[in-house]
Amino acid sequence: RAMRAAATARAAMAALAVTALALAVAAWRRARPVREVLFFPSRPCCIEALLAEAAEPGAPARPCPCPLPSGDTALSRLVRHLLSARRSLDLCLFSFCCPQLGRAVQLLHRRGVRVRLVTDAQYMGLHGSQIGHLRRAGIQVRHDQHSGYMHHKFAIVDRRMLLTGSLNWTTQAIQTNRENVLVVEDADYVKAFQDEFERIWEEYNPANYRFF
Amino acid sequence: RAMRAAATARAAMAALAVTALALAVAAWRRARPVREVLFFPSRPCCIEALLAEAAEPGAPARPCPCPLPSGDTALSRLVRHLLSARRSLDLCLFSFCCPQLGRAVQLLHRRGVRVRLVTDAQYMGLHGSQIGHLRRAGIQVRHDQHSGYMHHKFAIVDRRMLLTGSLNWTTQAIQTNRENVLVVEDADYVKAFQDEFERIWEEYNPANYRFF
Repeated sequence: RAMRAAATARAAMAALAVTALALAVAAWRRARPVREVLFFPSRPCCIEALLAEAAEPGAPARPCPCPLPSGDTALSRLVRHLLSARRSLDLCLFSFCCPQLGRAVQLLHRRGVRVRLVTDAQYMGLHGSQIGHLRRAGIQVRHDQHSGYMHHKFAIVDRRMLLTGSLNWTTQAIQTNRENVLVVEDADYVKAFQDEFERIWEEYNPANYRFF
Repeated sequence: RAMRAAATARAAMAALAVTALALAVAAWRRARPVREVLFFPSRPCCIEALLAEAAEPGAPARPCPCPLPSGDTALSRLVRHLLSARRSLDLCLFSFCCPQLGRAVQLLHRRGVRVRLVTDAQYMGLHGSQIGHLRRAGIQVRHDQHSGYMHHKFAIVDRRMLLTGSLNWTTQAIQTNRENVLVVEDADYVKAFQDEFERIWEEYNPANYRFF
C-alpha cells in the first residue's frame, strides 16, 4: 500500500510539473512581444471567418460561399491584429477606402472598443472612402484643415501594439502595390506614435477650426 | 624611493582604469542600437555643414550664407543617418524629388558607397524627380514595369540600419506633411526589409523586362 501511495504521489507530481511547464510556455508566448513585417501585395483572401469569429466568439463557423481562399496572408494578419483590440484603437490614416478594413473597424466599435480616427481632409471625400460610413456608425473622426497632407498610416491597438508603414488602407494598395507594415509591440516606439496621435487629435479638434 | 614607485604604480593603475572605463562607455555607446522616430513636418534647416563635413571630414567649416538655422531637426537627423553609410545604401522609394537628399545620396556614391535605388515607374518621370540626376551620376536605378505602385519608402544603411515610414523623399512632404520615419537597428527587422529589397531588385532587373 505504501508503494502504491508513493507511485500515486509521483504521478501527481509529474502531472503538476507538466501543467506548470505548459502554463509557463503559454505565459511566455503571451508575453513575447509581436515583431513582424507584413509585405504587400497580399494574395486575395476571404476574411469572413475572421470577422464572424470576432463578432460572435465561439459561434459555429458558417462557410463563406465566396471562391477566395481563407489562408494566412498579409491582409488576414493585418485584420487579425486589429481585431485583437479590447479597449482602444487609434487610427491615423491618409486614405481609408478598403471595405473589409472598414467592416473590421465598425465591428470593434460595436464591440465597445474606443475607436478614434484621424484622416486627411483632401482624401476623405474621395469616391469609395470609408470615412462617411464610419462617421454614420458613430465613430469619432477628425481631420486636418490645411494644405499639407496628414500622410501617416498607422494604427495603435490597446496602446500596446503599433502597426505602421507605407500602406494606405485601400483595396488597390493591398492587392496591387509593393507595401510594408511593421507590427511592433515595443513600449518606446508605441509611446512615440501614441504621443503623436494625441498631439494631432487635439490639433484637429473641431473646436480649433478657423473659418476665414 | 619604494614609496614613490608604489605611488607612481597606483597613479598608472588609476589612469589605466579611467581609460578602460572611457573605452567601455564608448564601446557601449557604439553598440547601443539606434531606436528613433522622426516626425515631420521638419522645421526648415540648412544641411550644408553636414554635407561639407561628409565630403571632407575634418576640413575647416565654411559658414553657409543662407538664412536657415542649422540646428537639430527631423530632416538633419535623417541626413545624418544616411551619411553614416560606409559600404552600402539600398533605397526603395516611391518618389524621390528632394534635392537635398539627392545631394546626400550622390555624395555617398562619390565616396565609394554602393548605392542601389528602386523606384516607381509612374513617379520617376515627374517634374522635379531626382532619378535622372542620380542615373547620370552613375547610380544604379531599377523600377517596376507594371500598374501597381512600388510604394515602399525605406532605406537600409550598411545592411545594419533601417529607415522606413510614410515619408516620400520630397521637399513638400518634408516641409508640410505629417509624416513619420522609424529608425531601427534591429537584425530581424533589417533582414526582413533587406530580403524584400533583394527580391524587388532581382524582379526589376532590366534583363527581365517584357515588351508587348
